[in-house]
Amino acid sequence: MSTSLGLLKSIVGEERVVDDKVSLLCYSSDMSPFAYTPDAVVLPRSREDVVEVVKYANESRTPIIPRGAGTSVTGAILPRRGGVVLDFTRMSSIKEVRVEDLVAVVEPGVVLDRLNAELAKHGLFFPPDPGSSSACTIGGMVGTNASGVRAAKYGTTRNWVLGLEVVLASGEVVRTGWPVVKHSTGYDLTQLFIGSEGTLGVVTEAVLKLAPIPPYKVTVTVFFDELGLAGRAVTAILLSGVRPAAMELLDRTCLSVVNEVFKLGLPSREGFIVLELDGTRGSVEEEMRKVKGVADRLGAKDYSWTDDPKESLKLWAARKALVPALAKVKEGHVLVPLAEDPSFPISEIEGAIRDFQALSAKYGLTTATFGHAADGNLHPVMIVDPADPDQWGRMLKMEEEIFEIVLRRRGALSAEHGIGLSKSPFARRALGGGLEVMRSLKRALDPNGILNPGKMGLDVESREDPVNLYYAYLSRLRGELQALRRAYEAVRCFRCGFCRAVCPTFNHYFVESKGARGRVVLSYYFLGGLVEASEALRQAYDQCTLCGHCVQVCPPGVKVVDIVEQVRRDLAAKGFISPVHRALGENILKYGNIYGLDNAARGELAKELRGG
Amino acid sequence: MSTSLGLLKSIVGEERVVDDKVSLLCYSSDMSPFAYTPDAVVLPRSREDVVEVVKYANESRTPIIPRGAGTSVTGAILPRRGGVVLDFTRMSSIKEVRVEDLVAVVEPGVVLDRLNAELAKHGLFFPPDPGSSSACTIGGMVGTNASGVRAAKYGTTRNWVLGLEVVLASGEVVRTGWPVVKHSTGYDLTQLFIGSEGTLGVVTEAVLKLAPIPPYKVTVTVFFDELGLAGRAVTAILLSGVRPAAMELLDRTCLSVVNEVFKLGLPSREGFIVLELDGTRGSVEEEMRKVKGVADRLGAKDYSWTDDPKESLKLWAARKALVPALAKVKEGHVLVPLAEDPSFPISEIEGAIRDFQALSAKYGLTTATFGHAADGNLHPVMIVDPADPDQWGRMLKMEEEIFEIVLRRRGALSAEHGIGLSKSPFARRALGGGLEVMRSLKRALDPNGILNPGKMGLDVESREDPVNLYYAYLSRLRGELQALRRAYEAVRCFRCGFCRAVCPTFNHYFVESKGARGRVVLSYYFLGGLVEASEALRQAYDQCTLCGHCVQVCPPGVKVVDIVEQVRRDLAAKGFISPVHRALGENILKYGNIYGLDNAARGELAKELRGG
Repeated sequence: MSTSLGLLKSIVGEERVVDDKVSLLCYSSDMSPFAYTPDAVVLPRSREDVVEVVKYANESRTPIIPRGAGTSVTGAILPRRGGVVLDFTRMSSIKEVRVEDLVAVVEPGVVLDRLNAELAKHGLFFPPDPGSSSACTIGGMVGTNASGVRAAKYGTTRNWVLGLEVVLASGEVVRTGWPVVKHSTGYDLTQLFIGSEGTLGVVTEAVLKLAPIPPYKVTVTVFFDELGLAGRAVTAILLSGVRPAAMELLDRTCLSVVNEVFKLGLPSREGFIVLELDGTRGSVEEEMRKVKGVADRLGAKDYSWTDDPKESLKLWAARKALVPALAKVKEGHVLVPLAEDPSFPISEIEGAIRDFQALSAKYGLTTATFGHAADGNLHPVMIVDPADPDQWGRMLKMEEEIFEIVLRRRGALSAEHGIGLSKSPFARRALGGGLEVMRSLKRALDPNGILNPGKMGLDVESREDPVNLYYAYLSRLRGELQALRRAYEAVRCFRCGFCRAVCPTFNHYFVESKGARGRVVLSYYFLGGLVEASEALRQAYDQCTLCGHCVQVCPPGVKVVDIVEQVRRDLAAKGFISPVHRALGENILKYGNIYGLDNAARGELAKELRGG
Repeated sequence: MSTSLGLLKSIVGEERVVDDKVSLLCYSSDMSPFAYTPDAVVLPRSREDVVEVVKYANESRTPIIPRGAGTSVTGAILPRRGGVVLDFTRMSSIKEVRVEDLVAVVEPGVVLDRLNAELAKHGLFFPPDPGSSSACTIGGMVGTNASGVRAAKYGTTRNWVLGLEVVLASGEVVRTGWPVVKHSTGYDLTQLFIGSEGTLGVVTEAVLKLAPIPPYKVTVTVFFDELGLAGRAVTAILLSGVRPAAMELLDRTCLSVVNEVFKLGLPSREGFIVLELDGTRGSVEEEMRKVKGVADRLGAKDYSWTDDPKESLKLWAARKALVPALAKVKEGHVLVPLAEDPSFPISEIEGAIRDFQALSAKYGLTTATFGHAADGNLHPVMIVDPADPDQWGRMLKMEEEIFEIVLRRRGALSAEHGIGLSKSPFARRALGGGLEVMRSLKRALDPNGILNPGKMGLDVESREDPVNLYYAYLSRLRGELQALRRAYEAVRCFRCGFCRAVCPTFNHYFVESKGARGRVVLSYYFLGGLVEASEALRQAYDQCTLCGHCVQVCPPGVKVVDIVEQVRRDLAAKGFISPVHRALGENILKYGNIYGLDNAARGELAKELRGG
């Protein structure tokens, strides 16, 4: 790879190629339990950069893995076969907002919340709203057809992308679609690329459809004594003709996490539904009456509503942060997202919830069930000690059974996270002959198989064994209690990347090793012995300002500052100290102060500084 | 073809293969100006039939053309390369309506209005609503991603199909999608097949998403003294946040046709907008206030509204029948749908309308401009004497300029009708590199090119020259004024197929030659000398009951009964008389009555009949 790395650097410029081990390790994980380290990371600045890198990759048969914010839940952005990660963090401009056309043109690296903040100035918004909105990028959303809480009313990313600019495996650039709301002009290539997880082409621009922000919104909360009843309420509300902008369902486990982490003081019940209703005031009030009717009929225990945007925002922020916050449920346990994202026909929602509860009891695993119930999307997630082979084994069996429930209840394998690596063993049974059709399309557009290989069951249908690659290093630490504790703190980091939005050093350098998430991941690898103490490692930690913003936005509240300080101490103990710190220390030893001057000279300096 | 026809008959049964010349000619046209006659028509009854026919076609390299009701505007269903038309008229069952899932499962031949009548019993509907709803089938709608008046709010067919069963070119059957509202499970093959005009696979079943019928609806009409002002009103209404279920724009030409044909008594103005607003009463009233505000601001001349379903229905039925009714504008002139279906960004709607008006003046052609303005879809249609080479030539130049306007204003070549044959010369400029991508996908799924060849610019980018294939026979009749008059009456038939819904003989036999449209087409070919007098032709006309239902639903009011009677006389004059009529005539000559008995024997018969 080293000669070809030189070629890569000559193509896009040395400063846009990351190839040192410490930096690369920070690109080895996402929210999945997998871990694969790339050979290089390129941060393109333009379509032309992408074209050149793809051409190079196609000629040299190097895998190319497009990546947004690295918030994938399925391992879709991990370089299973090595190769070059194309990190779009620096291609993030909002090129155009055409208010009168309800259209925006953006680069793939733009972060969803930033886009919506910009659009709000014009009274507009881009409706798909995944939990990761503070970090996730439009490019990543296109790759997975992301959606989140608002899909029942507003649809998914698929419904809001009018066109794409795509670099094909050959390096050719193709534009799809038009800035119009409907067309029947050829195969809908836009739709083909959406949800293809970077396996058919690399998106370099997206034309988005926008909606006016609705004039009135309320948030309604309803509680039930039984989770199944909450599921039944979801069905009844949908069949009553109400079209909630969002309707989320949470079980007791989730509810208690939300209460604990976000101090919401919600009642503690078995089932909880939170709805957003939007539109004109008249229509919202009509819908609220219908929801209240269903709640009363099914014996809801608490019903309340608010149209105060601040109150609503608190609830929805908590809901959005639920997944990573679940990492707080049990000391030393992590939430493992496997079989975590099915969607069901409306009439199967209640039954599926009951099935998941039964499975949880059967396998003796803590399971949190929640989901975007309005669109039948449930997230049954399992919470296990990743270093306990017994728990891990039970989890894999439960995963298999969850999938059987999905098949039996006519559900889809994944509603919004995609297949990626994690669900590739189930792709054939879920897709049937469709998998072969996908393969022939893949061969047609990427004959050399360079685009994100090893994903979606396209070229390989099995995962690695064991699956817990990211957590493998924990077992090495079994004997060292203190190191294990520190590692447990680090693996509470769910790699959600919410800290990317606030970390000052990340937002200067835009590479993972210079950000909070990268430092936590590195600390874990450092403990596990995957990375040695080095100057590069020292630099990653020295640059941290210890501002603590990351901790404030971290849903499970990982103690990032403590972790950084601890690693700094470890590195110092091994002799890796920053030249500045070393000089300061030497000054103290020599002069009794940090300035490297004797006290007389310091007096002169002070005079000088105050201007004479 | 004859030996292979035998094979085809042995596969699906003789009674499901149509191969006589008279019958085949009835499958040679659609609403486009083209004409191609198939070698055979097969009416499958099941997926298995389709599989066998496709396998046969793939082995024998025979083109296969899937067809719904034959209402294509672009020639998409015409056998340009000959081959077998797969007519889905008899595969039309509504297999399942799962009210609680808001899902229906249907065969491709089901007619949209019939489906919606069935769904209305459950308070549900399938929203896409093309003008041809009384005739068009779900299969055809999937093929072209049809939409119609409701797309701005409800989207197109694409947004309401959850899954498909598709027979691939190999004969393999693939199921795509799930009965769930969102998924991210593999490439979205459903979306790939939708809008592919039968070039990638043959749909044998569709899983549809349904919506609850909104509780309240109003129809609003607004008139302007200038067409451009009407266009500006459309933009202003959309930007005010109103989401009309439908918003149609009509110019003076269209308005006068609607008034004349449907006796609506609307004011005569340059520009007319008709809106449907639906939802709860509260939200509809709020939206009405906004529309009224825009109308007042732009100096609308007449504004009125109604929530009376009958009144609304009259208006919308007239709007839906506008296209075929335009065939009534000028004696001997026809509406030629070429470049008739672009869609524009919202901000370009007004400008595009003005451009079309200028073109109409430049080329001295009668042009009707109307469209589904809420989604930027305009239909500029040209009305010409198809037998006048000068007019025809000007029309083709104007077509080219319309397309240049589309490119300049960032529009899409087709909004809802598809590319088919008519727009294939523009496919490359509209799609750019996307056309090559389409070609590689096509090769991947249909390596032998048997599925609807010659369409979408995939394998050939030019049309025949001259384009007016269907109208070619008119020129032969130039010298015979009476025959020309009759031919003109026949070509007023726009082949919209609305008569399919009511013709009793068609609804018994389900083949075109046994229906009103087929009889009109045959009468035209008969005059043009393309088909000779024959027993088969006689049968087609003798079976007509002269009930006249076809005339009642015919938008341009083609005198079908007169046509049938005239052809019967022509055929009789050439010795083609039905055995019954011949016997009746002979009885009259011999016995003085039609019964073939002398008067005494008739007395006995009468006694017998009254029971002794």
